[in-house]
Amino acid sequence: MMLGPKLCKYSSALVLLGAGLCGLVNAGVPSGVTGGKRLTLDTINQQLRGMEYAVRGKVVIAADRISNEIKEKVKEYPFDHIVYTNIGNPQSVGQRPLTWPRQVLALSDLPEECGVDHPDCEKMFPKDAIERARLIKKALGGSGTGAYTHSQGPIAFRKDIAQFIKERDGGVESNPDRIFMTNGASNAIGMLLTALIKDSTCGIMIPIPQYPIYSASIDLLAGKKVGYYLDESNGWDMNLAELERSLAEAQEKGIVVNSFVLINPGNPTGQVLSKEAVQEIVKFCAKHNLVLLADEVYQQNVYDDDSEFYSCKKAAYDTGLLEEDKIELVSFHSVSKGITGECGRRGGYMELVGIDDDVYAELYKLASSSLCSGVPGQIMADLMVNGPKPGDVSYESHEAEKKAIFDSLKRKAKIAEDGFNAIDGFSCQKAQGAMYCFPKVTLPEKALEAAAASGVSPDAMYAISLLEETGICVIPASGFGQEEGRFGFRTTFLPSEDEMIKVVEAVRKHHENFVSKYS
Amino acid sequence: MMLGPKLCKYSSALVLLGAGLCGLVNAGVPSGVTGGKRLTLDTINQQLRGMEYAVRGKVVIAADRISNEIKEKVKEYPFDHIVYTNIGNPQSVGQRPLTWPRQVLALSDLPEECGVDHPDCEKMFPKDAIERARLIKKALGGSGTGAYTHSQGPIAFRKDIAQFIKERDGGVESNPDRIFMTNGASNAIGMLLTALIKDSTCGIMIPIPQYPIYSASIDLLAGKKVGYYLDESNGWDMNLAELERSLAEAQEKGIVVNSFVLINPGNPTGQVLSKEAVQEIVKFCAKHNLVLLADEVYQQNVYDDDSEFYSCKKAAYDTGLLEEDKIELVSFHSVSKGITGECGRRGGYMELVGIDDDVYAELYKLASSSLCSGVPGQIMADLMVNGPKPGDVSYESHEAEKKAIFDSLKRKAKIAEDGFNAIDGFSCQKAQGAMYCFPKVTLPEKALEAAAASGVSPDAMYAISLLEETGICVIPASGFGQEEGRFGFRTTFLPSEDEMIKVVEAVRKHHENFVSKYS
Repeated sequence: MMLGPKLCKYSSALVLLGAGLCGLVNAGVPSGVTGGKRLTLDTINQQLRGMEYAVRGKVVIAADRISNEIKEKVKEYPFDHIVYTNIGNPQSVGQRPLTWPRQVLALSDLPEECGVDHPDCEKMFPKDAIERARLIKKALGGSGTGAYTHSQGPIAFRKDIAQFIKERDGGVESNPDRIFMTNGASNAIGMLLTALIKDSTCGIMIPIPQYPIYSASIDLLAGKKVGYYLDESNGWDMNLAELERSLAEAQEKGIVVNSFVLINPGNPTGQVLSKEAVQEIVKFCAKHNLVLLADEVYQQNVYDDDSEFYSCKKAAYDTGLLEEDKIELVSFHSVSKGITGECGRRGGYMELVGIDDDVYAELYKLASSSLCSGVPGQIMADLMVNGPKPGDVSYESHEAEKKAIFDSLKRKAKIAEDGFNAIDGFSCQKAQGAMYCFPKVTLPEKALEAAAASGVSPDAMYAISLLEETGICVIPASGFGQEEGRFGFRTTFLPSEDEMIKVVEAVRKHHENFVSKYS
Repeated sequence: MMLGPKLCKYSSALVLLGAGLCGLVNAGVPSGVTGGKRLTLDTINQQLRGMEYAVRGKVVIAADRISNEIKEKVKEYPFDHIVYTNIGNPQSVGQRPLTWPRQVLALSDLPEECGVDHPDCEKMFPKDAIERARLIKKALGGSGTGAYTHSQGPIAFRKDIAQFIKERDGGVESNPDRIFMTNGASNAIGMLLTALIKDSTCGIMIPIPQYPIYSASIDLLAGKKVGYYLDESNGWDMNLAELERSLAEAQEKGIVVNSFVLINPGNPTGQVLSKEAVQEIVKFCAKHNLVLLADEVYQQNVYDDDSEFYSCKKAAYDTGLLEEDKIELVSFHSVSKGITGECGRRGGYMELVGIDDDVYAELYKLASSSLCSGVPGQIMADLMVNGPKPGDVSYESHEAEKKAIFDSLKRKAKIAEDGFNAIDGFSCQKAQGAMYCFPKVTLPEKALEAAAASGVSPDAMYAISLLEETGICVIPASGFGQEEGRFGFRTTFLPSEDEMIKVVEAVRKHHENFVSKYS
C-alpha cells in the first residue's frame, strides 16, 4: 500500500497511479514543496479539504466582511447591522443569561476569601448561590475550577445528570459511570464518530436535511454518509419505508452501516417526533443492529402544545429493548441550547446505554487524551440539570426568567412560521421545537439558470442576495441537504420579537424583488 | 478497495484477505454482531484501539481505584492518600490560583447589574478587576461570555496575544489573524495533526522521549511516528546528526516526513534548549521543508539561572528564515502551565507563521466545525498575556503571587533533581524547566525477568510497585518512549515543598526495598 518516497515525490506521469496518496503534483516540482510550501491545499489531509461546514461557511464569511465594512465605514449598505440568524447562538442576539447560574459560576471561580467567605458576599450574592458554590467547590474535590477533572467530569456532577435523566424518563435508571461531560455536544459527537468509523466502508445513517456537524465529521473521518429523507409534506416526519430503503441501498453498495443519527427535536427542521415515531426508530435500530446516536440537544425546546419530547432511552425502555439489552444508544445534550443558551461555555454531555464495557474503556481513553472538558462548562451543565428548588431564595426569579425566555421563543417560532407561510412562494412546516425554520422557497427558472451559470447552488445565490440587500444572514438549505430540485434556507428565530417581525418582513420584500428580478 | 458486504460480513476464511477492513471475524458470526453488540473492540476504529495515552493510563486508573478504596475504607494501605504526580495539574495538588484573573473572570460572567454595576461591587472586587471586566465584556462584543465567539477567538484577545508574542520576541511582529484560541494546547495540536496527516505515508518527527499527546494523536490519525532521540547524557540536548539519521531512515522506508515536533522546555525531560540549538532546529526544518510544531507551553517555566527561553519564531527571525519565508511554523501555548496553572479552564492558543493562506482557511473551517473554544479559557489566556500594569491596584499583589509560585517551583525542581540523584541507581538530568523530572532507574536483572514473565514493561511494574507501597502515582517512562534497555518514570514536582521532600524520601525507600526484593 505504501509508495516509496521516490515514486511519491516526483513526476506528474505517476499522478493517476498515486493520486490517492500523493495528491496533485505539479510536473517537475517535488510534491510537498509546491510554491515553496510544504503545506498546501494539495498536501494537506484531503478529507479536511473536502469537508463542508455551512453553519459558518461562505455566506457567514461574507456577512462578517460586510459587518466590518459597516463598522469601519468603508462601504454603504441599505441596513446598519447584520442580523445573524445563521446559528443557534441565543446570547449573541440578545437573549439574557439566566442570573442564578452565572452567580454560582462566579462564586465557584473566586478563591474562598474573595468569594463565598468574603464579609460582603451576601450583599452581592443570594444565599442559595453561595451555598451552591460551596457544594460545587466540594464536588471539585478541593481543587477548584482550575484543575483538570476526571476525564468524564466530576462524579458529583454526573450523578446530578443521571438523576435529571431518570426524572425526565419517568424513573428509568441512568448510570453516572456511563456519562461523559464534553466541550459541547459537537465534541461528544466527534468522539463517538471517531470510535464508530473504522474505515471507509463504514456508513452512518443521517437525516436529510441534517445538522452539518454530522456530514462534516463523517467526511473528516472518511466514513460514508447514508442519507435518509425526512418527509417534508408530513411535517418532516420519519418514514419507516424510507429508512429501510436507505439502509438496503447502502448495503447493496457494500457500505457497512453501523449507526443511525436521530435529531429530535429536529435541526434544521424543527419537528418534534411522536412517541410512536421514536419507538419505530428504536426498533429499527435494534432490528438492524445499529448504534443509535440520539441528538437530543433541543429536548427543552418544544413549543407546540400538542407535542412532547420523548427520549430514545424512554422509547427503548417502553419497547422492552433496554431490558433485553438489544439497543446500543448514545444520547447527546448541551448547555448551548434549551433555555440556558450558554454556547460560549462549551458544556455538554453524552450518556452511553447498552455500550460494551470494553468500548466504553476506549472512549474513556479517547476522552483522557484531551484530559477533560472545560470546568466552567461542566458547572453550567450541573446547574442546568439541578437548579434552585422551591423555597430557595432564587427559585421564583429563576423560574420566571426561564419562563420569559421560553415564552418568547414560542412566540418567535410562530412569528417566523406564520410570516414565512404568508409569503407567496414560501412553504414552512410547523416550528414545533428547536430554534429554526427551514422554509421551502420556489425560485424562478431564470434564477436557477443564473446560479448554474455562475457555478453556485441556487439557494446559496439567494442567501447572498438576501444578505446583501437586507443584512439578514441565513444558511442555504443545500448546506443541510434536501431533495433534488428543492431550495430554501435555515434561519433561527432567536433575535428579539421586534427584530423577528422585521426579519420576516424584510425576507418577504426581498423575495418579491428577487422574483421580479428573475422573471 | 471496498469489499462487498457479503465478503465482509461472513466467514473466517477471508480474514487474511480482508483483515484490514473487516477486523477479526468470529467463524460463522456476522461481523458487527459478535456477542450481540455492534460496537466491540473488533468493530471499532482500530487506530483508537491501538492508541496509548499513558498520562491517564493504567497506573493512574489503579491509583484512582486505590484512592476510592481509601476513601470508602474498603481496603487498607500503608498511606492515607494518593500523591498524584502523574500529570502537570498544579491546582489539583495545592497550587493556589492567581487571585486577580479569577476576580476578572467572575465579573466577566456576572450580568452587569449583579456584577460590575452592583452598588457593592467595589466592596468585594478591586477597581482594576472591575475595569478589566468591563473591557472583556466590550471585547466580547456585548454578547457576554455565553455566546459562541469568532471561531479563532475574539479579535481583541488575539491582539493582546500578538502583542505579548511581539514583546517576548524583541519586537518581531505577530499577526492576530493567524492566532487560533483553542481548548488547551491539546486541541490545537490535534487540529494541526489532522491537517498534516494526509494518509498513512505521512510521518511526523517526534522526540524520544516525548509527551504522549503526539504519539496518541498520530496513532489515532494513522500517521507515522518518526522518533529522534534526545541525548540524555548531554542533558537531553538535541543532536543534529541524530535528526538527520532519523529523517533519512524514515525516508528510506517510504515515509513522507512533513513535520517536526519540538518540545521546549522539554516534557518529560525538563531541558531548556540553548539559542544555538533552537536555531539549528529551525534551519534543519527549513532545509528539509518540514513544518515545525513548536510546543512552547512551558515558556514561562525556566528555573535554571543559566538558561533562557528562546522561541522558535525568534530563531526563525534571527536566522533570516522568517524574512525569506522559508519556515512554516506553528507554536502552541496554554493557560494550564506556566505560573497560571489553570488546567480546568482549557485555554490555549496557537500562532501560525509562514503557513499558506489556503491552508489557514482550511484550519479556520476545522475550527469553525466545533464553533469556538470555551470563552472562560479565552478570557484566562487574555489575562495571562495581559496582566495588571504597574500602578494598578492589584499589580503588586499579583506579581507577588506569581513570584511565590515561581520561586516555589524552582525550589521543588531542585528538591526533586537533587533527591533523585542521591538515590543509588538513579540518574536524573537537570530540571532546567517545565514541571517534570524523568530519572533513569537501574533495575535488577531479576526484576526484568519478573516483568517479562508477567508481560508488563519493567518500568510499569516498578511504577505499580511504587504506587502500592507509597501511594505515589508516577508514569512509567515507557509511556513517553526511551532507549532500549533504559527504565525510569516521569514525575511532576508540583506537590508542596513539604510533600515533595516526602515523595523523594519515599521513592528512595521504595527503591531500596525493590532492589533487595529482586536481588
